Amino acid sequence: MAMLVVGSVAFDAIKTRYGKVDKVLGGSATYFSLAASYFTSVRVVAVVGEDFTADHENVLKRRAVDTRGIQHATGQSFFWSGEYGENLNEAKTNFTHLNVFENFRPTIPQSYQDSDFLFLANIDPELQASVRRQMSRARLVGGDTMNFWIQGKRAELEQTLRLIDVLLINDTEARMLAGESNLPQAANRVLAMGPKALVIKHGEYGATVFFGQSSGIGHHPFRAPALPMEKVVDPTGAGDSFAGGFMGYLASQGELNREVFKRAMFYGGVMGSFAVECFGPERLMQLTREEIDARFQLFRELTHLD
Amino acid sequence: MAMLVVGSVAFDAIKTRYGKVDKVLGGSATYFSLAASYFTSVRVVAVVGEDFTADHENVLKRRAVDTRGIQHATGQSFFWSGEYGENLNEAKTNFTHLNVFENFRPTIPQSYQDSDFLFLANIDPELQASVRRQMSRARLVGGDTMNFWIQGKRAELEQTLRLIDVLLINDTEARMLAGESNLPQAANRVLAMGPKALVIKHGEYGATVFFGQSSGIGHHPFRAPALPMEKVVDPTGAGDSFAGGFMGYLASQGELNREVFKRAMFYGGVMGSFAVECFGPERLMQLTREEIDARFQLFRELTHLD
Repeated sequence: MAMLVVGSVAFDAIKTRYGKVDKVLGGSATYFSLAASYFTSVRVVAVVGEDFTADHENVLKRRAVDTRGIQHATGQSFFWSGEYGENLNEAKTNFTHLNVFENFRPTIPQSYQDSDFLFLANIDPELQASVRRQMSRARLVGGDTMNFWIQGKRAELEQTLRLIDVLLINDTEARMLAGESNLPQAANRVLAMGPKALVIKHGEYGATVFFGQSSGIGHHPFRAPALPMEKVVDPTGAGDSFAGGFMGYLASQGELNREVFKRAMFYGGVMGSFAVECFGPERLMQLTREEIDARFQLFRELTHLD
Repeated sequence: MAMLVVGSVAFDAIKTRYGKVDKVLGGSATYFSLAASYFTSVRVVAVVGEDFTADHENVLKRRAVDTRGIQHATGQSFFWSGEYGENLNEAKTNFTHLNVFENFRPTIPQSYQDSDFLFLANIDPELQASVRRQMSRARLVGGDTMNFWIQGKRAELEQTLRLIDVLLINDTEARMLAGESNLPQAANRVLAMGPKALVIKHGEYGATVFFGQSSGIGHHPFRAPALPMEKVVDPTGAGDSFAGGFMGYLASQGELNREVFKRAMFYGGVMGSFAVECFGPERLMQLTREEIDARFQLFRELTHLD
């Protein structure tokens, strides 16, 4: 079933212990689309500037991502520069130039309205809500957010959370959103805000999905591992790639039962693990489903008892 | 097969968000022994002071732990006081009174010499080495250490690591010991120092075992989850309880193959999860094997795909 993602298509300058890149394609919607494209058909709504060329667009098109929803504006694209030290979960931002993204008002093309799955990547919660309202027929809505909105637009974010079925955030964000340091308790509080399921990402330790009572999926959480990686070249986009693998797999399955959610957690981890192997989204551009399923087996062997 | 543990039998004053206790039985050897006692016969070598009464000793004896190796000295027992804030992985120490522990020179009773399994809990690496040399017949030697020795007695610790088969430490200790922030790379460096296997404990995220080439157990690491716990009453002793469950299960099995190590990782997590449910080692005093195996199944369901 078709998946619509609304988020950023941007450029990044990144420095890690393995080197640096000056301007590579990035943005939440880029990582998400590429990762999800191995599981389902993907449509993107975003805004880019004049520095976004046909070559950049072809990165998405080659993965059969529908880019007709990308708006082209006068000026430069969103440009972020950051570097990672020993803590790969947190980048030091050198600068964030919003550029054309500052005036992003997402409009959903008519041809996208029948998308069954919707992912609201990390943008202003008011924009997320406006997109959600334009997509009343969506069967399952995933969403992301970040500290900036939790602290700066809390009321608006709480409105948006009522419109989201599955929220994907990290440990720090979950604790901040809930005002509670214990993760399972924090999860319960976030689920009480609206989402039917909450995926908390633990970086190199994997991720846990907690289900709300209204999910009909049962009370027990499920935890998927992350592969111990000897070489994390660039952690940028790992979370969005997780979301792409997770949501993409869900969209590829007819029924959304507990077993499907469990496998989606594994596929999320798998796509995140590929994303960090190269600078930018390069590794996600030319995977095969065979490589993905081979890594899925590695994840399984990492935690499964005979 | 019989297990000998050498470490501390002590008292703790502990404060957490769930309350406080002024003086409860504690110490690495206490938690380890109780946890391991559900899997195998356990013998303890430690030193205690005059405040260690027959009632305290009975806590161990009721679990059939052989306490003849506990030396009784004049003075008070090791007494630690600490409290936990939001970060349950790190206690704030109020005081550490070594007391009789300061002059601890472990001597292994003749009747313990035939122990097949040995666990060197977190004590001075020179003492660990002297115990190891007294136990030349031990079939498998596990060990623990901490930042204090990594920084303060590095050369002695490196000698000791050559005498240990399985080292169990946490993320911070592994990174510090290896001088490397990437965990799998850090694991390789630690394995090059001597141990055949390295268990790195990730607190609430579980633990990973890495195998050295000389282990004969294969190259791939194995990761066991930790149960998301809504109420961590007191994290003290969780690591020693993990070690007790892990080593105890190994000692209960004839063959030390990969599958046995994998299950040992799960049992380690299980015993750690019980330990944190009450202040001190109380929860470990009266478990049943049925409760333990029921929780083992919870751990399994937490991560297993159908």
